Amino acid sequence: MIIDCHGHYTTAPAALQQFRDEQIAGLKTHTDIPLSARTPISDDQIRDSLENAQLKLQRARGTDLTIFSPRASAMAHHIGNETTSLRWTEACNDLIHRVCTLYPQNFVGVCQLPQSPGVPPIRSGAELERCVTQLGFIGCNLNPDPSGGHWDSPPLTDRHWYPLYEKMVELDVPAMVHVSSSCNPNFHATGAHYINADTTAFMQFLTSDLFKDFPTLRFIIPHGGGAVPYHWGRYRGLAQDLKRPPLTQSLLNNVFFDTCVYHLPGIELLTKVIPVDNILFGSEMVGAVRGIDPETGQYFDDTKRYIDALALTDLDRYKIFEGNARRVFPRLAGNT
Amino acid sequence: MIIDCHGHYTTAPAALQQFRDEQIAGLKTHTDIPLSARTPISDDQIRDSLENAQLKLQRARGTDLTIFSPRASAMAHHIGNETTSLRWTEACNDLIHRVCTLYPQNFVGVCQLPQSPGVPPIRSGAELERCVTQLGFIGCNLNPDPSGGHWDSPPLTDRHWYPLYEKMVELDVPAMVHVSSSCNPNFHATGAHYINADTTAFMQFLTSDLFKDFPTLRFIIPHGGGAVPYHWGRYRGLAQDLKRPPLTQSLLNNVFFDTCVYHLPGIELLTKVIPVDNILFGSEMVGAVRGIDPETGQYFDDTKRYIDALALTDLDRYKIFEGNARRVFPRLAGNT
Repeated sequence: MIIDCHGHYTTAPAALQQFRDEQIAGLKTHTDIPLSARTPISDDQIRDSLENAQLKLQRARGTDLTIFSPRASAMAHHIGNETTSLRWTEACNDLIHRVCTLYPQNFVGVCQLPQSPGVPPIRSGAELERCVTQLGFIGCNLNPDPSGGHWDSPPLTDRHWYPLYEKMVELDVPAMVHVSSSCNPNFHATGAHYINADTTAFMQFLTSDLFKDFPTLRFIIPHGGGAVPYHWGRYRGLAQDLKRPPLTQSLLNNVFFDTCVYHLPGIELLTKVIPVDNILFGSEMVGAVRGIDPETGQYFDDTKRYIDALALTDLDRYKIFEGNARRVFPRLAGNT
Repeated sequence: MIIDCHGHYTTAPAALQQFRDEQIAGLKTHTDIPLSARTPISDDQIRDSLENAQLKLQRARGTDLTIFSPRASAMAHHIGNETTSLRWTEACNDLIHRVCTLYPQNFVGVCQLPQSPGVPPIRSGAELERCVTQLGFIGCNLNPDPSGGHWDSPPLTDRHWYPLYEKMVELDVPAMVHVSSSCNPNFHATGAHYINADTTAFMQFLTSDLFKDFPTLRFIIPHGGGAVPYHWGRYRGLAQDLKRPPLTQSLLNNVFFDTCVYHLPGIELLTKVIPVDNILFGSEMVGAVRGIDPETGQYFDDTKRYIDALALTDLDRYKIFEGNARRVFPRLAGNT
């Protein structure tokens, strides 16, 4: 079985965005658009949105199950207030649940959280619990910068976040560290903000004792870990200079990387420097890069091809494609 | 000849930091400490600061000339006002000039700029001109985020920066894109802020026509280009999706990467995906990582060893170690 740990519903029916547009328009008149204002979306509309996109690509690429969450760039936690964020989040998560109900063999849910700048993270706990216990979701996406590029929340290692981590541990779900769109003109969302957040989070973890406080807390750092594997020597050296334990001891029981790196040399590097137990297959499909690489004639984000091209043992291949995902997302067992 | 394009004076005599400490103390009483308040530094103190550090390591590693600039993390453009920044910058640049005068075979200067948040970049033009025309410097370090981690300046591709670029073009000097310390607790300086800035700058360049406006403007993106080479497929794909020209056409006449990547797999990746004409040898020595890699028994930042380990042609090796630096820093010819 091949499990893609990183897929977003970037092709949702237009009615979802209409709800969002109305919500944003309502902010100007201080009107919170209720969930009941959503235009109904039919099962057929959901099927149509997937059949020629994620499902077609799953079949074409030979992957089986996508761990599926709302479109990351659309989370936009910086828009509006806590109520805005909660209603938008519920709408997005409800739709993911319908996808997973229609295609239980193909998708399993990971939720967006109703984060909002300045609001304590634990206020996302109820929606996390709803998604996990009622909708069968197996993890969440956690935005380390709900401001959308101003980075004015405390680091992920600050006690500010601890009550939410307690809830994650209680529910036994991991988080993918995933920012959303950027409202800072310095940061292109998918080309800079995403990758920077990945690198930033890793360095925060490196300099803290977070995983002493939460030995079972688990994070996936997406996009191949940002810059981290490429600079693995720098991070090993910084840890040593800072008198921190070796990274394999201090971080790699809790921190995992996906394979959303869109060329073979990058995947070769990732699998060369990061222990195989810490790598989860992911493609971000349909996502940040949608074109075909003229150098290979294949989709940039068909990351399975890069892994197929590696000389891995059967066991290592199993770990990357399935085994590690089952370990990091133990609630997968209840779904598949 | 082996030219290290990226060295900082991280071992300067203590009197330099004393001046800075007095300057910062003066800010509390709104007193701008004048340059004349500097404690004199003797030539012997300068020699002592280098002989057991940069010079010893040059000899041990077999490198010849370091393109040398003030300590990047100490630039701290966010401290104080424009006068604070100017005086501190002059003090740092003057000291680099003394180093280069004492050891003209070993060091050639690159200047810090007296940037300050909210101050137009061209206000750094006079100090740049002084350093280049009077002190023999051959380039500058340009901080894309003088706020120190709040990222509230316009992107490097905004016209905000153009007058300074005109001065750089007039003087025929490149800039290394280099942030300083971070006052944002989210960003560890050398482990996140530096690398993020590199990635951010590249993506800004990718989405702009800056180099149509300035065909001869040249930037070095340090630390191996941040996350860029590791995600080269992503950047090629983003350029294609955004209907931008191929990166080799649109950026690689103007953008260069150094080799400050502290393990062999990273250097292998860099040289595999980035054209050899765009790679300049650099070590950041003595800098971000000072320890010895227990896996190799050698200094992490002895990046020459990684390049020596590659199967390169003599011509390609010459380009990385010397030729590209001479092309990117044409004023080197007047110094060496």
